[in-house]
Amino acid sequence: MLDIDLSKAKKAVIEADAKTVLVQLPEGLKQFTTQIAEELKVNNNEVFVVMDPTFGACDLALHQMKSLNADLLIHLGHAPIHRPKNVVHIPIYDTVDGKTFEKLMKEVEVELKKKKFKAVALCTHAQFLPLLDKIKNRLEEKNFKVLIGEGSPRIAERGQVLGCNYTAVTSIEHSADAILYFGEGLFHPIGIAFSSKKPVLFADTSTAKVVDLSKERDLYARKRFAAIAMAKEAESFGILISTKTGQRYKQVALDCKALIEGHGKKAFLLAMDLVREEYMAGVKVDCFVNTACTRIVGDDAEHWKKPIINPLELEIVFGKRKWEDFNFDVLY
Amino acid sequence: MLDIDLSKAKKAVIEADAKTVLVQLPEGLKQFTTQIAEELKVNNNEVFVVMDPTFGACDLALHQMKSLNADLLIHLGHAPIHRPKNVVHIPIYDTVDGKTFEKLMKEVEVELKKKKFKAVALCTHAQFLPLLDKIKNRLEEKNFKVLIGEGSPRIAERGQVLGCNYTAVTSIEHSADAILYFGEGLFHPIGIAFSSKKPVLFADTSTAKVVDLSKERDLYARKRFAAIAMAKEAESFGILISTKTGQRYKQVALDCKALIEGHGKKAFLLAMDLVREEYMAGVKVDCFVNTACTRIVGDDAEHWKKPIINPLELEIVFGKRKWEDFNFDVLY
Repeated sequence: MLDIDLSKAKKAVIEADAKTVLVQLPEGLKQFTTQIAEELKVNNNEVFVVMDPTFGACDLALHQMKSLNADLLIHLGHAPIHRPKNVVHIPIYDTVDGKTFEKLMKEVEVELKKKKFKAVALCTHAQFLPLLDKIKNRLEEKNFKVLIGEGSPRIAERGQVLGCNYTAVTSIEHSADAILYFGEGLFHPIGIAFSSKKPVLFADTSTAKVVDLSKERDLYARKRFAAIAMAKEAESFGILISTKTGQRYKQVALDCKALIEGHGKKAFLLAMDLVREEYMAGVKVDCFVNTACTRIVGDDAEHWKKPIINPLELEIVFGKRKWEDFNFDVLY
Repeated sequence: MLDIDLSKAKKAVIEADAKTVLVQLPEGLKQFTTQIAEELKVNNNEVFVVMDPTFGACDLALHQMKSLNADLLIHLGHAPIHRPKNVVHIPIYDTVDGKTFEKLMKEVEVELKKKKFKAVALCTHAQFLPLLDKIKNRLEEKNFKVLIGEGSPRIAERGQVLGCNYTAVTSIEHSADAILYFGEGLFHPIGIAFSSKKPVLFADTSTAKVVDLSKERDLYARKRFAAIAMAKEAESFGILISTKTGQRYKQVALDCKALIEGHGKKAFLLAMDLVREEYMAGVKVDCFVNTACTRIVGDDAEHWKKPIINPLELEIVFGKRKWEDFNFDVLY
């Protein structure tokens, strides 16, 4: 059950004496658009709700803010990556009912004992952050060692993972027997499986079951190796650059271009807000290099009509990195 | 056949001593992306091609420009609506082979004589503007009177129509027996049929035939009247505001909101770059009011799951405008 507490958001509107408030919410909250807009009308302020899809705090509606001359942007549901002025991040937390929580924790204990894992790196995504300490205490009572990592500066809270950044796990995994991800949906834990060398256990709050995702890693690596092999045949590359605040890697794109051209092949810089495969229709390149959200490659590569690889994979294509140093690309 | 002359664009890059050039092209030109990018690399400049779809000069990639720190934006294929600094509009002209032109002009003469039209308001879209005087001379030789209108400030060239603005026609139609649109594709001439009271003849360069579109007007009006009738039943409205340079009508949106609320109904301001129906999934309103590109309603209303109307139609909903004053909404 989602717990939407807008008191901080309302306070921010009042404190900023905002006349024009822009609200940005994840797709899953669009059903609450009108309710949220009504709640955030606290003074004589106008409330505009952004309908462009947003998939993370990497995608703040800053240009819409400027375009509509808004005083304040309220970004709901994602922990901050950047903190531009006049932008307030409001977390939305998920709750797990007591019975499900108990059942799931018992499953976790059984699984850890069965696999003889004594130390785990614990993590979750933004919606379940308030539960981390409770889970940690619970496991420690049962004599497991629980590590929670800080992550890189892109990570707002300890133990938090993003679809593009698992440093809260990878920074401490050497001290753990396994990774324990607590949460809902495959999106985040599958990313851990792609990124980490250790076994990944997914404690799924929607089914109250624990799933071992370690095998996903090999399948993923095989798919990526196939894409890299195809990219080696390419004569021309389209380098994708997103203009979103937290997905904009212009220098990475220029570095990719230099690497490609240094090997006598052609490279073209293709810029856009949201990277969509259908926008590429007709563009005559053999392969795409994605410098935006790493998950475009991680999850959607199969929907692209041409091979699409990440910058780290491009280095393998041109022998700058070894195959055995293949890893899931991270946004910092 | 498209005639892509980039000499002016290259000159602009050199004159601006631009280091980072952003190029924006209509969907139909994306097949030339790599060729155009190569041609526009004239110095040590980098060329980024925008992949976000653009459907007109109402949609300049200004925020992408800022985001990528570009010195110059080259916008291809549309005549200017606004003229921000460091933006160069490069027209792309269509050509019609001599044989097709002759055949089509003969068809036009036959049709005008048959219908006893002596004076025509001549117009076209940006791609065929250089042909207007030739067509005018040709018809005048045959003793027809040919009028070419100036249009509102949104219109760059005399005789030019936009999907959202037919003032180059409507400003002079009182002196004409019919409108003659010369060009390709139904998009523009159907808009004239929606906007004008006079017969509309479409001289189609792709078939070398002349089609009378006057009947489309009634069909369109009937569809719009049905939408207006449904909107009268609505209790809540989502007002769509685009953040695109030439489609951004914040004050119109606020006026719509005041009109709706003044009648005791609910209104919500929904902002986005490109208006897409799928972005509205889950938003709990009964009807949408579109303040962005008028063609979203003109062409796509049937693809919307809920009624969608333009601001002018909203006035009819609330009795501020009479049914008999229904017209196709225009962007100025």
